[in-house]
Amino acid sequence: MDFLDDNVRSDLVIEYAEQFYNSSEQKGKRMSGVEMRESEETSYGIKVTDVQITNENGERSIGKPIGQYITVEAVNLPDGGDDYHRAVTGVLMSQLRKLLPDIENQKILVAGIGNRDITPDALGPLVAEHLFITRHLFEQYGKDSEIVRGMGNVSAVIPGVMAQTGMETAEILHGLVSEIRPDVLIAIDALAARSIRRLVTTIQLTDTGIHPGAGIGNRRYRLTEEVLGIPVIAIGMPTVIDAATIVADTMESLIGVLNKSPILQKAARATEEFNHEEKYLLMRELMEPQMTNLFVTPKDIDEAVSRISYTISEAINSLCHHV
Amino acid sequence: MDFLDDNVRSDLVIEYAEQFYNSSEQKGKRMSGVEMRESEETSYGIKVTDVQITNENGERSIGKPIGQYITVEAVNLPDGGDDYHRAVTGVLMSQLRKLLPDIENQKILVAGIGNRDITPDALGPLVAEHLFITRHLFEQYGKDSEIVRGMGNVSAVIPGVMAQTGMETAEILHGLVSEIRPDVLIAIDALAARSIRRLVTTIQLTDTGIHPGAGIGNRRYRLTEEVLGIPVIAIGMPTVIDAATIVADTMESLIGVLNKSPILQKAARATEEFNHEEKYLLMRELMEPQMTNLFVTPKDIDEAVSRISYTISEAINSLCHHV
Amino acid sequence: MDFLDDNVRSDLVIEYAEQFYNSSEQKGKRMSGVEMRESEETSYGIKVTDVQITNENGERSIGKPIGQYITVEAVNLPDGGDDYHRAVTGVLMSQLRKLLPDIENQKILVAGIGNRDITPDALGPLVAEHLFITRHLFEQYGKDSEIVRGMGNVSAVIPGVMAQTGMETAEILHGLVSEIRPDVLIAIDALAARSIRRLVTTIQLTDTGIHPGAGIGNRRYRLTEEVLGIPVIAIGMPTVIDAATIVADTMESLIGVLNKSPILQKAARATEEFNHEEKYLLMRELMEPQMTNLFVTPKDIDEAVSRISYTISEAINSLCHHV
Amino acid sequence: MDFLDDNVRSDLVIEYAEQFYNSSEQKGKRMSGVEMRESEETSYGIKVTDVQITNENGERSIGKPIGQYITVEAVNLPDGGDDYHRAVTGVLMSQLRKLLPDIENQKILVAGIGNRDITPDALGPLVAEHLFITRHLFEQYGKDSEIVRGMGNVSAVIPGVMAQTGMETAEILHGLVSEIRPDVLIAIDALAARSIRRLVTTIQLTDTGIHPGAGIGNRRYRLTEEVLGIPVIAIGMPTVIDAATIVADTMESLIGVLNKSPILQKAARATEEFNHEEKYLLMRELMEPQMTNLFVTPKDIDEAVSRISYTISEAINSLCHHV
Repeated sequence: MDFLDDNVRSDLVIEYAEQFYNSSEQKGKRMSGVEMRESEETSYGIKVTDVQITNENGERSIGKPIGQYITVEAVNLPDGGDDYHRAVTGVLMSQLRKLLPDIENQKILVAGIGNRDITPDALGPLVAEHLFITRHLFEQYGKDSEIVRGMGNVSAVIPGVMAQTGMETAEILHGLVSEIRPDVLIAIDALAARSIRRLVTTIQLTDTGIHPGAGIGNRRYRLTEEVLGIPVIAIGMPTVIDAATIVADTMESLIGVLNKSPILQKAARATEEFNHEEKYLLMRELMEPQMTNLFVTPKDIDEAVSRISYTISEAINSLCHHV
Repeated sequence: MDFLDDNVRSDLVIEYAEQFYNSSEQKGKRMSGVEMRESEETSYGIKVTDVQITNENGERSIGKPIGQYITVEAVNLPDGGDDYHRAVTGVLMSQLRKLLPDIENQKILVAGIGNRDITPDALGPLVAEHLFITRHLFEQYGKDSEIVRGMGNVSAVIPGVMAQTGMETAEILHGLVSEIRPDVLIAIDALAARSIRRLVTTIQLTDTGIHPGAGIGNRRYRLTEEVLGIPVIAIGMPTVIDAATIVADTMESLIGVLNKSPILQKAARATEEFNHEEKYLLMRELMEPQMTNLFVTPKDIDEAVSRISYTISEAINSLCHHV
Repeated sequence: MDFLDDNVRSDLVIEYAEQFYNSSEQKGKRMSGVEMRESEETSYGIKVTDVQITNENGERSIGKPIGQYITVEAVNLPDGGDDYHRAVTGVLMSQLRKLLPDIENQKILVAGIGNRDITPDALGPLVAEHLFITRHLFEQYGKDSEIVRGMGNVSAVIPGVMAQTGMETAEILHGLVSEIRPDVLIAIDALAARSIRRLVTTIQLTDTGIHPGAGIGNRRYRLTEEVLGIPVIAIGMPTVIDAATIVADTMESLIGVLNKSPILQKAARATEEFNHEEKYLLMRELMEPQMTNLFVTPKDIDEAVSRISYTISEAINSLCHHV
Repeated sequence: MDFLDDNVRSDLVIEYAEQFYNSSEQKGKRMSGVEMRESEETSYGIKVTDVQITNENGERSIGKPIGQYITVEAVNLPDGGDDYHRAVTGVLMSQLRKLLPDIENQKILVAGIGNRDITPDALGPLVAEHLFITRHLFEQYGKDSEIVRGMGNVSAVIPGVMAQTGMETAEILHGLVSEIRPDVLIAIDALAARSIRRLVTTIQLTDTGIHPGAGIGNRRYRLTEEVLGIPVIAIGMPTVIDAATIVADTMESLIGVLNKSPILQKAARATEEFNHEEKYLLMRELMEPQMTNLFVTPKDIDEAVSRISYTISEAINSLCHHV
C-alpha cells in the first residue's frame, strides 16, 4: 500500500459488492457481469466469498478489473488461538490453490510489498521474511537433488517503497522477473478498507494483481500479468481505514437520530439526498487538508500484523512445499 | 499514555485555555484562577505559552490540577533541520530550568512512560534510551571523583505498560523511588490532542505530574509529588488524536456549508444548539463501539517520534550535565 | 549477563562438574558435597542433569553456592521443529515444578535480565515479553473473579542494564519486590559458557539466584533470597563464549598434534605441565587487551534467541496458568 | 558479507600490504605492481592510505584484483563525538570523489548489501536507509524542475541475502541495473578483518567492486563492472573477525613467552618454522568444526554500526547532492 496516496479508498472488492447489493434499489437484483458465491468453513465460522467479475459491465459496477476475487473473513484473526490460525492457514491454502492450479512444478517469486518500518504497512515484508526459501538450493544442487525433494522452487524479495528506493515497485519487480524468470508472482500487500470491522479480519486473494492508485496512473506501474508477463496473484489484508470513512459512518448514525426529531426531519431529509458515496466525498471535501496525512489503525496493530503474517506465510509454505 | 483508556481527550492545557478564550461569550474576559503569558523565540518562531492554574476556580474552568503548564509550539518539528531542532532543544532546556530551579545538585530519575512497541506511544522509552546516564558512576567513584566532574546524577527507567507488566506505572516508580531516593522525577509520555495541528508539534512541560484517566481513578496511581514524595515534572507531546475529534471538526465545517443554503439553514441552526464540547460527546455516542479501539496518527509518525525523542533527550542532557 | 564484565567464564555448573569428573586424577572418585543424577526424556533425547551442591566442600570444588542446579541439554534447540520445542517446553516446565513445588497459589514476578538491544543478551527481555501477564486482572477483579479462573498471578519487569539505567538490577528489583510483594522471583538471563557445543543448546535452572561477577563484588547486588527476601529461581542459557576459551581449546588440539612428532614431544610435554584451567588463564594473559571487548557468538544467534525465548516463556506460562 | 562463507579471511587490502612490508625478508623492498601512498587528515589524525594494484604481479602478491583501494583509518569512530564523525564524513566524501570524478550528472544506484537482521552484517542496509533518495522526483518532475535543483539522481536498494531471497545479490542487481539503467553502482557491505584493531575503525573504498568468496566461485555472482556493465564502487568496514585469527594472534604471543625460557626455546623454534599465514591455516585445521559457525565481534557492535552508518550515508549524500 502506498501510504502517501491521497486517494486511498477501499481495496476490497467485497465492500463494493456488498454496497451494491445492500443499496435499497438493488435489493433482489443481480449485478450483470458479477458472480458471487459464499461458503463457510464450518468448525470455525471462517467465511469465503468468491466474486468473479466477468465483463466490462461488472468492471464498471464494482470499479475493479475483470478477474477472480476471493475474500476470506476470519473475525477471530486478531485474538484467536493457534488452532484458529491453523484453520485460517488451511482455508487460505486451499483458496490459493484455486487461483494457482498448476503450482506443482512452477517457479514462484514472492514479493512482500510495503514499508517494513511503518507497522500497518509491514504485512508484506513480514510475510516474505517467514517464507521457506529454496531457489538457491535448486540452482546449486539441481531439481533432482535429494536436498530439494518435496520442495517447490521459491524465491522472495522485499522491494521497499518509492520514498526509500526512488523506484516504482513495478520497476524493481520487472527487472527481477526479467533476470530470474519465475513462472508466477505472488504479491502480498497491506490494504485499506472502508469498514472498521474488516480491519485485520479479512484477507483478499485475487488473480488480477495490484493496481496502485485505484486504476489511475501509469499502466507501467501496475503489478499485473500485462506488465510483468507472468500471472500475478495478490494477497492483501486491510490494516488501515481512511479518516473520511469514520466521518461518513458517523454521519449515517447522526441522520438516524435526526429522523426521530420532527423539527430535524427536514434537515435529515436534506442530507439523505446524498448517497453513501457522495457523503464520503463530501466529508473528504470538508476535512482539513492535514487530515489526509493521518491514518486510522487498530491499537493492537503491531501484534495483529506480526501474528497474521505467520498465518499467511504458512499458507504459502504449505502451498509450495510438500514436506 | 494508556492506549487502552477509552476516555482519551486532550492532555494539553493550552487546548482547553484556547477553547475558553475563543468561545463567543468569553471574548475579552479573563478566566479567574488562570494566568497565561505568551512569548516567542524569535529567530525560529517557536512559541512559548506559560499557563498557571492558581486556584480551584481555575481547576474547574480548565479541568486540570493547580500548577504550571508550559507549552512549546514548534510547527517545524516534523520536518525542520538540525539547526531548528537545536533551537527547540535550547527552548526546552531553558523552560525546564524554570520548573527545576535547584537542579544543580539534585539526583534525577527519568521515567520513559509508554509502550515502546507501539510507535506513537514510544516517545517516553526512546527519550530515556538517549539520555546520558551517570548515577552508577557517582555510586562507584563518589561525587568528588574526576570522572563525574561537571555531570549531574542521572538515572533512568522504562517501566513498560500494565498489559506487559501487570503493574501500574505508579507502583513500579513508587518502589524505585523508595529504593534509590532521587530528589526529582522527570516523566516523559506521549499525549493525546484534540487538534490535528498540535500532533508532533507541541510539547507540554508541567510540574503537576501525570494523572492517568484524566483525574478519575485511583489516586495511588497518579505520578505526582503527593504519591511519590518528590517533585514530578512531566514532559509530553501529542502523537495521536481521538477519532471523535475528526468527526466533530468535520461537523463544524459541514454546518458552515449548510448555512449558505437557505433551505438547510434551519438544520444548521439545530446543530448549532450544541457547543463544540457537546458535539464531541454526541459524535462519541454515535460512533460504533469498535472505533474506540482505533487511533489516528500521522503517516510519518515513526520518523517524527524517533527524531523528536533526540531533541527532548538533548534538552534533559544539557539541563543535567555541564560538559 | 553483564557484557562489560571482564571475568566472564562459565555460568554453567555442569561445565565445572564435568571438568572435575573428567580430569585424570578424579576418574572414579566422587566429589564430596556434590550430588549428580542424570536422566533422559527419551523420545527426543533431551538430557536432564540434576546437580545438588550440599555443603561448603561442594561449593569450593565447583565454585558455585550451595543449592540445586538442573541442566536441560537439548542439542536440537537451534534447528528443531515445533514438536521438538514443545517437548523442551514440557521438560522445562516439569523441572521448574521441582524447584517451585508450591507455585499454585503464589504471586510470581518474572524479571527479564539483560540488554534487549544486544542480541545475545536479549534472551531475558524477550522471554518476559512473551509471558501471559495477569496480576493487574487480580488487582482489578479479585482472585475469585471468573476472569482469572485457572490463572496464576503473574507480573513481569524488564529492568534494563546499568549503563542504560544507572542502577544495579538488584536495586531495581529490591524496590519492586518491596512495593508489590510477590512470593517468588523468576529471573531469566543469558549466560556465558566455556564449551562451544553448549551455546544455545543448554538451559540451566537453579534455586540459587544470580550472582553477578562470579561471586565477587557487593553482596547487595546479588539476586538471591538473602537479598530480596523471597525465593529466586534463575533460568539461563549460554549465548556467548569467551574468546580465551577458543584459544585454550585449540591449544589442546595443538598439543595432540605436537605429540605425534618426536622432535616436538618435549615442547608438548612442557605445555602439558599446565592443566586446562591454567592454559585458559595463560591464554587470557597473552591475548591483546582489546580482545576482552569482543564476544564470540553463533552466526544465527538472532533467530536462535528469538525462537528459544518462546520455548522458555511457554514453559513459564504452562507452569503458572492452567487454562 | 556472506556470514555463511566458511573461508572468511580479510577483505582489507591494507592488511595484506602491511603483512608484506612487515615480513622480515621484505623490509626495505618495494612490491612490484603495487603502489602505496599515505596521508593524514591532521586535525583528527584520520589516516588515508591509497593502494593501487597496477598489474598481475600486484594481484598475485596481494591476492586482490587490479584497481584502487583507499583505506580510511579513524581510530575514534566507535567513541568519537559529532565533530569527529563530521571530519570522517568529509574525508570519505573527498576520497569517494577521487573514485567518482564524473559524479555530477550521473545517475547513482546505491546497494546496501548484507542481512539487516544480523547486527554486524546490517551496515549496508542501514547506510541505504539513511540516504536522501531523489530518482522518483527526477522521473516525475524532470531534471530541470525546481524541485530537484542542486540534487543528484539517487536511488537505493537493499537486496537481502541469499538465504532470505533464494537469489544471488548479483542476480538481483543485474536485473535492476538492466531495468533502471544507472550510470554507477555504489555498494556498501560489512567486511571481515584479520586484526582486532581494524574492527569498526577502518573503511575501505575501492573501484573493483565486490568479489564474494575471495575470488573463487562463479564469475557471474561478482558485483563488478565486468558483470553489471557499469562502474561499481564498493565501500566496506570490518565488523567481525575470524575466530582462527584470535588463536593465531595468541600463538604469536605464546612463542614470544616460550623464547624467554631456555628449556622451551626448541619448541618455540619448531613453531617458528610456520609463518603467520601457515599458523592461521594450522589453527583453522585444529579448531573444532563448530567454530566456523561462530563470529567474533565487539560488545558495542549495535551502537557502532548504527552510528557509523550515518557517517557513511552523510558522505554519500554530500557527494551526490549540493544543497
